[in-house]
Amino acid sequence: MKKLLATATLLLSLNLFSQTWEDSIQFNRISTEILNKGKAYNELRDLTKNIGHRLSGSVAYEKSVKWAEQKLKEAGADKVWLQEVMIPVWERGKESLHIKSGNGKWTKLKMLSLGNSEGTKGKDVSGEIIMVKSFAEYEKLSSDQVKDKIVFFNYPFSQSYIETFKGYSDASAYRSTAAMLTAEKGGKFAIVRSLSSAFDDVPHTGGMRYKDGTAKIPAVAIGNTTADELESLLKSNKITAKLNSNCGMKGEKLSHSVIGEITGKKDQSVIVVGGHLDSWDVGEGAHDDGAGIVQSIEVLRTFKNLNIKNNHTIRVVCFANEENGVKGGQQYGKTVKEKAEKHLFALESDAGGFSPRGIALEMDDAKRNQIKSWSPLFLPYGAYDFEGRYSGTDIYPLKDMGIPTAELAPDSQRYFDIHHTEEDTFEKVNRRELLLGATVMTQMIYMIDKNW
Amino acid sequence: MKKLLATATLLLSLNLFSQTWEDSIQFNRISTEILNKGKAYNELRDLTKNIGHRLSGSVAYEKSVKWAEQKLKEAGADKVWLQEVMIPVWERGKESLHIKSGNGKWTKLKMLSLGNSEGTKGKDVSGEIIMVKSFAEYEKLSSDQVKDKIVFFNYPFSQSYIETFKGYSDASAYRSTAAMLTAEKGGKFAIVRSLSSAFDDVPHTGGMRYKDGTAKIPAVAIGNTTADELESLLKSNKITAKLNSNCGMKGEKLSHSVIGEITGKKDQSVIVVGGHLDSWDVGEGAHDDGAGIVQSIEVLRTFKNLNIKNNHTIRVVCFANEENGVKGGQQYGKTVKEKAEKHLFALESDAGGFSPRGIALEMDDAKRNQIKSWSPLFLPYGAYDFEGRYSGTDIYPLKDMGIPTAELAPDSQRYFDIHHTEEDTFEKVNRRELLLGATVMTQMIYMIDKNW
Repeated sequence: MKKLLATATLLLSLNLFSQTWEDSIQFNRISTEILNKGKAYNELRDLTKNIGHRLSGSVAYEKSVKWAEQKLKEAGADKVWLQEVMIPVWERGKESLHIKSGNGKWTKLKMLSLGNSEGTKGKDVSGEIIMVKSFAEYEKLSSDQVKDKIVFFNYPFSQSYIETFKGYSDASAYRSTAAMLTAEKGGKFAIVRSLSSAFDDVPHTGGMRYKDGTAKIPAVAIGNTTADELESLLKSNKITAKLNSNCGMKGEKLSHSVIGEITGKKDQSVIVVGGHLDSWDVGEGAHDDGAGIVQSIEVLRTFKNLNIKNNHTIRVVCFANEENGVKGGQQYGKTVKEKAEKHLFALESDAGGFSPRGIALEMDDAKRNQIKSWSPLFLPYGAYDFEGRYSGTDIYPLKDMGIPTAELAPDSQRYFDIHHTEEDTFEKVNRRELLLGATVMTQMIYMIDKNW
Repeated sequence: MKKLLATATLLLSLNLFSQTWEDSIQFNRISTEILNKGKAYNELRDLTKNIGHRLSGSVAYEKSVKWAEQKLKEAGADKVWLQEVMIPVWERGKESLHIKSGNGKWTKLKMLSLGNSEGTKGKDVSGEIIMVKSFAEYEKLSSDQVKDKIVFFNYPFSQSYIETFKGYSDASAYRSTAAMLTAEKGGKFAIVRSLSSAFDDVPHTGGMRYKDGTAKIPAVAIGNTTADELESLLKSNKITAKLNSNCGMKGEKLSHSVIGEITGKKDQSVIVVGGHLDSWDVGEGAHDDGAGIVQSIEVLRTFKNLNIKNNHTIRVVCFANEENGVKGGQQYGKTVKEKAEKHLFALESDAGGFSPRGIALEMDDAKRNQIKSWSPLFLPYGAYDFEGRYSGTDIYPLKDMGIPTAELAPDSQRYFDIHHTEEDTFEKVNRRELLLGATVMTQMIYMIDKNW
C-alpha cells in the first residue's frame, strides 16, 4: 500500500512537472509570437492617428465601432457582432476660463471642463475665487461665505504612493464632487486641481457627477502649474474668475459595443477579455484605452495564429461608454443575465499599455490561490504581482454576478502624467511594453481556458 | 532548558520583527523624501539641456566635471574631489554615407560611425556592398570574395528576449568586431545594422575595437529602416556604397572622474554608488547615463536630508570614460588597490532611469542570500528581482578585487530604442520612474551600511 501511494505520488508529481513544462513552452510560444509578429502596436497607430479621440456619441466613436469590427474579423474571430446600448451624450463645445486680480487685465488659463459637467450656456459667469485645500477646510465654510463664489478645490495629487492609482483614488473625490459641494452652498462654479502626477500645465478632464436636488453648476480642471500660480496669487490678492462654456448633456443615443469571439471546442462557456473603445474627447485615447482594445484583439489573434485549441469560447469585448456612463459594461452584464450565458472569467486591460507587473484578481480565495500557484510561469515575463484585489470598471457587472474578474496591472508610474489629457497620444506608448502586456494577457487566458 | 531555548527563540524573533519593522519605516521615509523632494529629475534636466552630450575628451565633458563637483557639494558631501585619469580621445567630425545601384544617383543614408572607429580621412572610399546575415555566413566567404568590398553585417536585434539586454548581448559582437573581420579578408569598410529594439531609422553608435595586425578600417551603423531597405535593394541589385568620414583617435588626454562622500560614523570603509558621467557624442546622454549620475547623487543627498547616520563612508563616484575606454573605472580600481582602501560594496546604475525591477548581484552566495533575505522590504517599491548575476562596467575592477558589486535593474523595454542615439534625451525620462530608481538604490545602500 505504501509503495502504491509512493508510486501514485511520483506519477502525480511527474504529471504536474510535465504540465508545467508544457505550459512554459506554450508561454514562450505566445511571447515569441506576439513580440515578433504582434499587430497591436500598428493597430493602435491606426486607431489613434486615423480616428483619434472618440467620446461615446461622437462621429469618431462610430468610426471606431466599424474599425473594431473590421479588426476582430481580420484577427480571425469566428463571429463578430455589435451590441446595442443607449449611451448618454456629452459635448464640450467652446470654453474659456479667465482670471483677474483687482482692476487688472483678464488672463486666460489653460483648462478643461470636467466630463458630464454642464457649462454656462455661452454666457460669462464670474465671481471671486475662494480656495480650499481639502474637504475638511471646505466643510468649515458657511453658505454665506460660499454664496456666489467660485470654489477652487486645490487638493494635490499625492506623490508618496508607489502605485499611482492610489494617489488617483485618494484625490478623485475632488473631481467627482466639487460641483455638487459648491452648489450646495450657493457657489457659481468649481475649479479643481487636475488629478495629475506630472508637474506641468496640462489639465486633465474626467467624469464628475451631480446630486439630485442641487443645482447643476459647472466644474473645470486646471493643470498643476496653473494651480500653483493661482494658489500663490490668492495668498495676497482677491481674484475674480470668469467662465464661458458650452458643454452639457445632449440626451441619449443608440450606440454599440463591439464583440468578437472564437468558439469553444469543448463547450460554449465564455471567457471575456476586453477594454473600452471610447475615450475622452482630448488627445488620442492611446493608453486610455486604445491599448486595452488592441491588446485584447491580440489575444484572440494569437490563439488563432498559434492554432491553440480553446476549450471554451474566448470573447473580446470592446466596451462602449466607459468614460462617461459605463453603459457598455452595464448592457453587457444585463445581456449575459438575460441570456443566462455561462461566463467563466473576465479580464480587462484599462490601466495603460505599460510593462506588465501582474494581474489583479477579484474572485474567491480558492480561485485566487489557484491562479497564484501559476505565478512562477509568469515571472520570466515580468508579471509577479497577483495581490491586487480589483478589476476593470466595465466588468464590475460580471463581478457582481459572481463571475471571477481580473485586470492587467501594468507599471503605473507614467499613467497619471497623461491620463484624460491632450498628451495621451500614440507617441507615449512603447511597442514592446504594449506587446508584453498583450503577452501576459494571452498567457492568463490560456491558463484559464485550459484549467477551468 | 527547553523553556530557556523557547524564550531565546522568542526574543530573537521579536528582535528580527522589530528590525524589519524599523527598516520598513526607514524604507518609507526614503521613498517619501525622494518622490516628493528628490532633485534628480531637475538636475538631469540641467545636465542634459545645459551641457548635453559629453564624450570624454570633449569640452562638454569637462563642463560636466565641474557640474558634478558642484552638485555633490550642494547635496551635502563632506568631501568632494577629482580623480585624475588619462583617457583616449575620439572625435567624429563630418561624415556621410551614400549608396547607388547601377548607374543611378547617389542616395544619402542616415548613419553614425561607430565609436573609436577610424574614418576615411575626408576622402571618398567606395566599393560594392556584400551582405551577410550572420558570422556563420561571413565565415563562408573567401578573401577573394570580400577583397575591396564593403561588408554589411545585417544581423537583427532579437525581439524574442523579455530582457532586452539579452538581445543587446546577442547582437553586440557584430558591432564590436565587424571592422576587424572585414579587414581580415581585405574589405574596405563595414556597415552594421544598429543594435536597436525600435523599428525606426535611428542609427545607434557604440564602441567597436580593432585587432593588432589587421588594418584599422572604418565601421558605421545604420538604422533598422535603412537596413531593411538596403537588404531589399540587395536582393536584385548590385549596390555601391561610398563613405566619407573624419573620425578617429586623437591621442590621450588628462581628464577626471568626480568623487564625493559622506564620512562613516563608525569606520571609513567605503560603500560606492555611482554611474558614468561621460556619454556618446549624440543625443543628451539622458538615460545613458545621466540618470545613473543624478540617482547616485540623490542617494547621498537623501542620507543627509533624512539625517541617517551612516556607519561606513558612502561615496558617490561619477566615472569618466565608460563609453570608449572604461579608463575611469580602471583608474578608480587601481587607486583603491594602491591606497589599500577597504571597500564593502559597490552599486552602479547604468541601465537607464526606468522603473526599478530589482538589483543584480555579483558576489558570493552568503552575501547574495543575505541580500535576498531582505527582498520583502523592497517588494512594495516594485523591486522583486535579485536573481541577476552581473554588475556595472565601471565597477568590474572592484569585482575583480573580490568586492561585492551590484547594478540597479530597471525595466528594460524602452532602453534599446534610444541607447547611444540622438533620441536619448531628457524628454524620454519619466520623473517618477527616475526617482523610484533612486529610492531603491538608497534603500539598498541603507541596508548594506547598516548590516555589513
